[in-house]
Amino acid sequence: MNSLLIKGCSIVTMVQGDKPFVGDLLIEGSRISRIADAIDQPADTVIDGRGMAAMPGLINAHNHASMSLLRGFSDDLKLMDWLDKKMLPAEARMTKEDIYWGTMLAAAEMIASGTTAFADMYVQMDAVAQAVLDSGMRASLTRGMVFLEDDGGRRMAEALDLIDNWSGAGDGRITTMLGPHAPFTCPPQPLSEVIELARSRRIPVHIHLAETVEEVAKIRERYQQTPTEYLHELGLFCGNHVLLAHAVHLTADDVRLLRGMRGGISHNPVSNLKLGCGVAPLREMTAQGITVGLGTDGAGSATTLDMFAEVKAAAWLQKLVFGDPTALSAEQALRMATIESAKLLGIDGETGTLEAGKQADLILIDLDKPHLQPVHDLYSLLAYSATGADVDTTIVAGRILMRNRQLQSLDWEEISREASRRAARLTEGL
Amino acid sequence: MNSLLIKGCSIVTMVQGDKPFVGDLLIEGSRISRIADAIDQPADTVIDGRGMAAMPGLINAHNHASMSLLRGFSDDLKLMDWLDKKMLPAEARMTKEDIYWGTMLAAAEMIASGTTAFADMYVQMDAVAQAVLDSGMRASLTRGMVFLEDDGGRRMAEALDLIDNWSGAGDGRITTMLGPHAPFTCPPQPLSEVIELARSRRIPVHIHLAETVEEVAKIRERYQQTPTEYLHELGLFCGNHVLLAHAVHLTADDVRLLRGMRGGISHNPVSNLKLGCGVAPLREMTAQGITVGLGTDGAGSATTLDMFAEVKAAAWLQKLVFGDPTALSAEQALRMATIESAKLLGIDGETGTLEAGKQADLILIDLDKPHLQPVHDLYSLLAYSATGADVDTTIVAGRILMRNRQLQSLDWEEISREASRRAARLTEGL
Repeated sequence: MNSLLIKGCSIVTMVQGDKPFVGDLLIEGSRISRIADAIDQPADTVIDGRGMAAMPGLINAHNHASMSLLRGFSDDLKLMDWLDKKMLPAEARMTKEDIYWGTMLAAAEMIASGTTAFADMYVQMDAVAQAVLDSGMRASLTRGMVFLEDDGGRRMAEALDLIDNWSGAGDGRITTMLGPHAPFTCPPQPLSEVIELARSRRIPVHIHLAETVEEVAKIRERYQQTPTEYLHELGLFCGNHVLLAHAVHLTADDVRLLRGMRGGISHNPVSNLKLGCGVAPLREMTAQGITVGLGTDGAGSATTLDMFAEVKAAAWLQKLVFGDPTALSAEQALRMATIESAKLLGIDGETGTLEAGKQADLILIDLDKPHLQPVHDLYSLLAYSATGADVDTTIVAGRILMRNRQLQSLDWEEISREASRRAARLTEGL
Repeated sequence: MNSLLIKGCSIVTMVQGDKPFVGDLLIEGSRISRIADAIDQPADTVIDGRGMAAMPGLINAHNHASMSLLRGFSDDLKLMDWLDKKMLPAEARMTKEDIYWGTMLAAAEMIASGTTAFADMYVQMDAVAQAVLDSGMRASLTRGMVFLEDDGGRRMAEALDLIDNWSGAGDGRITTMLGPHAPFTCPPQPLSEVIELARSRRIPVHIHLAETVEEVAKIRERYQQTPTEYLHELGLFCGNHVLLAHAVHLTADDVRLLRGMRGGISHNPVSNLKLGCGVAPLREMTAQGITVGLGTDGAGSATTLDMFAEVKAAAWLQKLVFGDPTALSAEQALRMATIESAKLLGIDGETGTLEAGKQADLILIDLDKPHLQPVHDLYSLLAYSATGADVDTTIVAGRILMRNRQLQSLDWEEISREASRRAARLTEGL
């Protein structure tokens, strides 16, 4: 069993109540075996962590990874122009190979910016799963299902194939969910069937909710309900683990309906800002005990998959909304990006904090930089000044995926070449 | 005269109407002498710019550079706790040497993140000016004057000493302004005297305006006016070049009062977000033809001096406020961080765009990274995905201040050591 010892780093466990301290961290095989002030024992690999902070890898709770091929392709457009004139036509051209290389591009960006796990919803998920395996990352994968036209059950069959074929792959790095796309793309009958299947087979559900005011109006017109009421009445929240993406436009009653739900909400502030969607009511959610993690959404909308940008945006927005610098602290925002997101993916027993016995999913951040000195408060620096580019080392399940900012599991030149070539083809003439 | 030729980069001139194109850029002495598709002539230094974007250096229109020593020292506190219990007591301990090293720390961060010029307001400005000279940056310096107690004219004398001794230093890299601190710290009589002096000696003015609702209430109570009305009635906007910092809480009438003003407004969205102050009414300002640039405020509030964070925050917030992704585009936000900020500093004839004849203040951004590929739209990538860490090379007045991310004019080890030592002393026991 391989061992890896990291010496003399500032350890930020993200365990509630822990304070950062300088110490050593030992990894044996895929797991953290010990964290202590000093560990003196031989190890296959020793990393000098002095001047670095060790923290749990960031967990991106909502992504459409392969859309990284469309990064910056249609920014600064009205939402419907963005979707109808640019995104949908380009996505319609995507082959399975494009989706593989788009996911590899996203994996390269995520690893390089300290993200160790992500939740993904897209199509052709075999290609996404293969990219997860090849990159060494951890992921919760979902075949997104839009039920606006009958396809003879193809979508559901593909969703179940993903679950049957890939759950637990990569030594457990891959988990799966069912992915009815959103209330406005899932009429009651197919959605009820998905919910029933989720309950009977105990499969978690990943779904978009109330991202835009247009969506809320559409559901109101169709069903005289809010999107949250619609999902609630169909029984989605009765026992199922549910990962809700966005949840921007929730009323106080909607939030109360979610009280006690398993799973929780992926807040995606950068995407919500960039598309002009609004600010999710985080305080009401957490007041009801609802778990709130952080995600980027696809790079097609957010442009960046840097989770440090989400941490900043989440904290900034709550301070703005309440006119109160204490509304969401640096530590709380970092917790959202780690252990809270882990809960959404259902992997908080294995990752999301630095603790002996957990999977070794962690990052080292190089503090020897002008914007990260002096060190009065590590949480402040990590949340408000650090970016993904400060991540020196990324480790998933004990395997080093980046060291000294060099990708170890991926061939960046090949990915870059494939991504550019395919991106040009997808968007030609649009 | 030294010459520097940059070959094969994507050139983003930021000149209105120009589109990015691949070409060469020649610098002779301190100035850009030519920009063309291809320049084939010998040069003392040749930089291979392939895979890079060249753009004007970013210009930070409002900073308190030496407060970088207090980065992260008092985040997530109520504004008055932040100020009274932490910032003011720590600042009261600052010596001239602390201010020098704090500014050197800020300069290291600014150069490393692509900022080539900044406007600064603080005290002991000889120390700040020396750090500007030593770092090779460009700056507009202002002695901040709080007139809440009589000091026998010491502040004004220091402000004039700065102007007399340092204007034009460093081959013109240093310019100066008069700095009455803010409406709520400057009663009518001393403020009138400053305004009169500014007019008679044709000295620009740098002043804070309407950062918080508390400030607006205070001025309302004292003078039954808005802060903007107060400054307007004292004649500040009659002909003087004025750099207004923040301008968050302006009424529509306030904005109309500023129509036709010389100078303009430094929008500092990250600081305004972090302190929970609010969002400045940018659309109303630009509709009245008022110049709006971008600044960070001091790292004591913003935590980071990365102007790419301000670009993102500025665009994100306008999209949020208007629920409209087209409200402020990537290109517009980048313009605010370059040529519009240059106008605020009164140096737009010399810098802020890439044009033959202007000072060679520019940066090269390395695009060969996962988060900056593929290249559908360079403005989108630079505004929404790039961070200061993507800056490979920083040049001011033709001198290379950073190359391959290595600082050339500054000794980072020395700055880091001095900053840590001094920061510890300033905050001990607070």
